[in-house]
Amino acid sequence: MKVTNKELKSKFNKYVQQEVEVSAWVRNNRDQKEFGFLVVNDGTTLDCLQIVYFNTTTNVELARSLRAGACIKVIGTLVATPQMAQSYEIHATLIELLGDSSEDYPIQPKRHTREFLREQAYLRPRTNLFNAVFRVRSKIAYAIHQFFQNKNFIYVHTPILTANDSEGAGQTFSVTTLDLNNVAKNPDGSVNYSKDFFGQSASLAVTGQLEGESFALSFRNIYTFGPTFRAENSNTLTHASEFWMIEPEMAFTDLTGNMDVMEAMVKYLVKYMLKNLADEVTFFDKFVSPGLQVKLTKVLKAKFVRVTHHEVISILKEAQSKGVTFENEPRYGADIAREHEKYLTDVYFQSPVFVTNWPKDIKAFYMKLNPDQTTVAAVDLLVPGSGELCGGSQREDNYEKLAQRMQQMNIPLQSLQWYLNLRKYGGCVHSGFGMGFERLLIYLTGVENIRDVLPFPRTPKSIDF
Amino acid sequence: MKVTNKELKSKFNKYVQQEVEVSAWVRNNRDQKEFGFLVVNDGTTLDCLQIVYFNTTTNVELARSLRAGACIKVIGTLVATPQMAQSYEIHATLIELLGDSSEDYPIQPKRHTREFLREQAYLRPRTNLFNAVFRVRSKIAYAIHQFFQNKNFIYVHTPILTANDSEGAGQTFSVTTLDLNNVAKNPDGSVNYSKDFFGQSASLAVTGQLEGESFALSFRNIYTFGPTFRAENSNTLTHASEFWMIEPEMAFTDLTGNMDVMEAMVKYLVKYMLKNLADEVTFFDKFVSPGLQVKLTKVLKAKFVRVTHHEVISILKEAQSKGVTFENEPRYGADIAREHEKYLTDVYFQSPVFVTNWPKDIKAFYMKLNPDQTTVAAVDLLVPGSGELCGGSQREDNYEKLAQRMQQMNIPLQSLQWYLNLRKYGGCVHSGFGMGFERLLIYLTGVENIRDVLPFPRTPKSIDF
Repeated sequence: MKVTNKELKSKFNKYVQQEVEVSAWVRNNRDQKEFGFLVVNDGTTLDCLQIVYFNTTTNVELARSLRAGACIKVIGTLVATPQMAQSYEIHATLIELLGDSSEDYPIQPKRHTREFLREQAYLRPRTNLFNAVFRVRSKIAYAIHQFFQNKNFIYVHTPILTANDSEGAGQTFSVTTLDLNNVAKNPDGSVNYSKDFFGQSASLAVTGQLEGESFALSFRNIYTFGPTFRAENSNTLTHASEFWMIEPEMAFTDLTGNMDVMEAMVKYLVKYMLKNLADEVTFFDKFVSPGLQVKLTKVLKAKFVRVTHHEVISILKEAQSKGVTFENEPRYGADIAREHEKYLTDVYFQSPVFVTNWPKDIKAFYMKLNPDQTTVAAVDLLVPGSGELCGGSQREDNYEKLAQRMQQMNIPLQSLQWYLNLRKYGGCVHSGFGMGFERLLIYLTGVENIRDVLPFPRTPKSIDF
Repeated sequence: MKVTNKELKSKFNKYVQQEVEVSAWVRNNRDQKEFGFLVVNDGTTLDCLQIVYFNTTTNVELARSLRAGACIKVIGTLVATPQMAQSYEIHATLIELLGDSSEDYPIQPKRHTREFLREQAYLRPRTNLFNAVFRVRSKIAYAIHQFFQNKNFIYVHTPILTANDSEGAGQTFSVTTLDLNNVAKNPDGSVNYSKDFFGQSASLAVTGQLEGESFALSFRNIYTFGPTFRAENSNTLTHASEFWMIEPEMAFTDLTGNMDVMEAMVKYLVKYMLKNLADEVTFFDKFVSPGLQVKLTKVLKAKFVRVTHHEVISILKEAQSKGVTFENEPRYGADIAREHEKYLTDVYFQSPVFVTNWPKDIKAFYMKLNPDQTTVAAVDLLVPGSGELCGGSQREDNYEKLAQRMQQMNIPLQSLQWYLNLRKYGGCVHSGFGMGFERLLIYLTGVENIRDVLPFPRTPKSIDF
């Protein structure tokens, strides 16, 4: 009977003492004369499966010579081994080679650095770490869809190719079909975009929010989940040039409602992780980020703190007066630094924290101006260990105020007239937020480098595979 | 009690004769002196909701003056109207304006052409047609995730930015941070890509298959679901420059297994559509594509036909001998035309049809060469009314044969050495397919233009919003 390790694990009683057939890749081979052990993984679980071969096994010579990476078919009896770390193994009657491996196979049964494995990105899911990471990535992506679909949010594919360099949220990549060796020019020497594919300059979107708002003002509650691009030349643990983002947008929802959805979402995803990815959580807790399980479990019961930016600065200043030292001076009217976030989530509140009502001058044009005229109805969600996980706001729903703000901030009104019009044709209170999917994965797994939660990361000068 | 129309519909008995509060957008207003009718939609259902206002309604003057597009809050009593087309309405005690609309609101209560509505893409979800289309888009996207996740397929985000112009599957968009006004050049006049973001030329991916294969050879079964780009200068009903694609890839699976998964997937999605989008199916059947419901219901019971390309040509030639005329001559060794597909699915078999074993010369380099040395283990799934829905193949798993084929077809070996290596490090029989998400939506809704199933379509010279 052909089975996967996932089936063996979940229906052990059905298969024990039965003849089973598995296909899998060899991780390790220890030949011990009278018998030998193959550690194999068939991709369906994080756990490996142990195969025992004997002198009586058909193709025992082949079995002895199997190298790491080889793909094999095994027929044998499933045997319980309650005294062992793994609780079952297969005693092979036959081993067959499906695809050989060669001596230069890069993933040998020893410890490899993550830097080395990044260079082998096409093979690294064959290691425990990346098997766990990308399984979490898949299942948490699904959990995100579940959360929003269960609440009747409409999933929108906002465009990736855009003619708006809309938010000014970072440098963008240009997209063109012009011949770069010989760019078509106008008589005055400027680029002749009429010869380009779209007849105008185009770039990769940095957000789907604006289009998302138009759908929210039709469907009430919507979310996006797609790739986003930044051409920033920064090499940090948290920056990549291509990453995935989730951007929900909700009509008839103010900043408080926005926070309620964020909090419910984070708790849903953490709960999903603990329940459906228990093996992976145990693995990360043991080998990657000690304390992860406790950290995640605590979040489920926490009531997330809600505090204004002004209050935060006061808290930080008070901390300084009590002897806490910060490299960056906390200032009313200015952004807060990573060390400040850390103090708030890990020391002062020991909880996820919503920081609301930010100084308008450091925030985006579309955020709703508060009655104080100096702050906007923005919110950042900070989480212990990882800092900012989500950022959102109530949107400016007043046509004149928004137009004025766009002018002040040199946002081109003409190409965004449709966005302004949303305030003219039945506008309403609405809010939304963005969550970087990789930020979330870093938070949930404890793997700290964004390059290690993206299947094939793209960063400055790096576009392999 | 604040409610949505979806809640009123699904829990009517709970709310009938109760005071309820809804927020929604006005579609139409018919003032009839003693009373008046507002048709509103709150985005949660395809159906609109009827509000009746009376002289006693607070703000009745406002109610009378409400224009299409306005956003309002209504408090009133939910009343059953079993004798009417809509089975309930709200008798308003209060109507409040949340956001006014203006006289130039483009979506007036009359028939608009789809061409006109494309120019109003940011407002068109407020029409019945696009409310239905984009609700189907959202829910079918989710159903696709459900189908694969329930089968333990791992969802992979393959990269959008790529340095491989890998498949040669069409013209690509270049991606760059070079200044197009003044492209950095080498002394010999060629583009100096060392100054570009990735240090080499980059483009938007036309497929995630190759990276998907690497994950399938780790996780066994995987799927991608993401945006894909083609810079083809074609203005047809089925071409867009940016569209979404699903690409499953399965280890230990041959062409037959590949077809089994395609057939199960299509049936799952059709079943999901009929069950969970019944209102939308009724709407499309009535106003867009008469017969849709019957067409979809038939698919559920059909055993998809499986026939070789050679057999198909023989069938077409025989049809000709019996008096069927084709504009394009059917030829062994050549591709088949849309009219041939139509004859097969709509006339000859009257069923979805898998066409297998295509002439190698018209197919991609990675498809497994059959023992006859002239055909490859490729398959196209043709469906009645829509033609090709999926295309796939068993992959060439022999290193030497694949390398030879790449050389013959001028595929750059060096940048795809990692892909070749998958055949050296534990390769196995594996297969996969691609399905254009918009093709699927066109099939499921009967809406025939790809521009009408994409939220913000991108086509040559068209990149609005």
